[in-house]
Amino acid sequence: MKKAFLVAAALSAAIGPAFADQIEGKPSSADILEATTSEDWRPLDPENTLYIELSTGRVVIALSPSLAPNHVAQVKRLAREGFYDGLSFYRVIDGFVAQGGDALGKRGEQTPLAAEFEDSVGKDFNFYKMKDEDGYAREVGFLGSLPVGHDPKTKTAWHLHCAGAFAFGREDARDTASTEFYVTLQPQRYLDRNMSVFGRVVAGMEHLQALRRVSPPQEDGDDLGETIIAMKVAADVPEAERTKLEILRSDRPAFDAYVEARRNRSEAFFYFRPDYIDVCQLPVPVRAQED
Amino acid sequence: MKKAFLVAAALSAAIGPAFADQIEGKPSSADILEATTSEDWRPLDPENTLYIELSTGRVVIALSPSLAPNHVAQVKRLAREGFYDGLSFYRVIDGFVAQGGDALGKRGEQTPLAAEFEDSVGKDFNFYKMKDEDGYAREVGFLGSLPVGHDPKTKTAWHLHCAGAFAFGREDARDTASTEFYVTLQPQRYLDRNMSVFGRVVAGMEHLQALRRVSPPQEDGDDLGETIIAMKVAADVPEAERTKLEILRSDRPAFDAYVEARRNRSEAFFYFRPDYIDVCQLPVPVRAQED
Repeated sequence: MKKAFLVAAALSAAIGPAFADQIEGKPSSADILEATTSEDWRPLDPENTLYIELSTGRVVIALSPSLAPNHVAQVKRLAREGFYDGLSFYRVIDGFVAQGGDALGKRGEQTPLAAEFEDSVGKDFNFYKMKDEDGYAREVGFLGSLPVGHDPKTKTAWHLHCAGAFAFGREDARDTASTEFYVTLQPQRYLDRNMSVFGRVVAGMEHLQALRRVSPPQEDGDDLGETIIAMKVAADVPEAERTKLEILRSDRPAFDAYVEARRNRSEAFFYFRPDYIDVCQLPVPVRAQED
Repeated sequence: MKKAFLVAAALSAAIGPAFADQIEGKPSSADILEATTSEDWRPLDPENTLYIELSTGRVVIALSPSLAPNHVAQVKRLAREGFYDGLSFYRVIDGFVAQGGDALGKRGEQTPLAAEFEDSVGKDFNFYKMKDEDGYAREVGFLGSLPVGHDPKTKTAWHLHCAGAFAFGREDARDTASTEFYVTLQPQRYLDRNMSVFGRVVAGMEHLQALRRVSPPQEDGDDLGETIIAMKVAADVPEAERTKLEILRSDRPAFDAYVEARRNRSEAFFYFRPDYIDVCQLPVPVRAQED
């Protein structure tokens, strides 16, 4: 990876800062999405999709049980028990996180979870590996449409704190996460491998960005922030009330073409093309599910 | 730069993923800010500060005339003429930009500006250069507390599209910016050197994140989005009504210590330390001005 990057940089120095010649006639990311077939898309799995209902609308979260299965099981169990219904987003810091749950600890202790900061993966770890260098991880890419890091030396993989990462908070000690969750409002990669990330917001991020900024309450009567009307597993919601979305698969050639079109934009609008894309600046396309 | 990065990576492989031994007793970024003196801070210059007044509150923008002086002069002239007062944020796309101005072109044509995507800088270009590798630019760092890129080969420097970048929009052709402006809601580094960036939001970003998401209107009667009550140069606002802020200077040792404390967090909370920080994930501290 390091070597590939150096070669690319050397080429770029030889050609000059803009690669317009190479770009003419290449499809844009919009062209590529338009040319996809239904096989390039994957409907969200209702068993691994969470809805957070706010007064302003629904937030849809794709859960990824691959790398932090116990956290996924825990949040689904709690959602199914109605644990989060009526609680709130009580810690909302602009450009950082929106944290929600049981601010004042009124709903009883839950057994804390062992940390799932990263997961051991075998040599056969199969993900969409980007060619782009990354400062925080030896390799980055996508696993089931979610951004991940991978280290072939430690043989581990983990979900990344791009904007919209869904994770559990914890105390200083590793194994202390139990119920409180957060969503990153901006990339916060320094949290990678320090927290158990297990999902990503795929729709409704605008509702979280607009939450009232509030600090954690200390006692009864303090501002609790905006209410979580309900948190539900999509499979438990009547089919007619589900938000039916599909997401671009990362294991098909269309995904690679999409990434390349974002790495070097062919549109005439662009004068400088970096031949690089940051994994967190690559939104994965989501669309309404086709019938 | 490349070499330094490889050496750091090799060290990290030898020591293992977490550098806890090296970290014990090192100050946190909070410790460093607490130890700063008034010389480490710079009040915002009222002549180069814009206020955008919204119904939800004030957005404060630090303008940087160093690299795109004609754009700064233009936005100040327009603000002083009251051009933006009563106009709106008419294009607000979650995770991308909030764009404002004269959506339907009712206030008359303005002379377009020549692009100021990047500026020629001499060998003496003096900025805070980060040691961290960056995928989009040969060098990154800070110039007067704003994130910049620098290329010693092209001898140019430019402001970066981190979250809160303030820039003028344009048509496909280079030299077409005149009045319409945008603020990035997330980092959009692929726009670097393709647009003229000339400022950064330093307070009130939460108001922009909460703007109603809206697409550009096509004709009278369409939703224009939320109203810009006024855009003013701070120097024109009575002193008692100004938002008096100061920002951490990037040309003093405290800044370097702050960056290092963010690169490798010493707090016991952290188990993995990347020895890396992305320039856009390094918020520059701003505080109320001391009397």
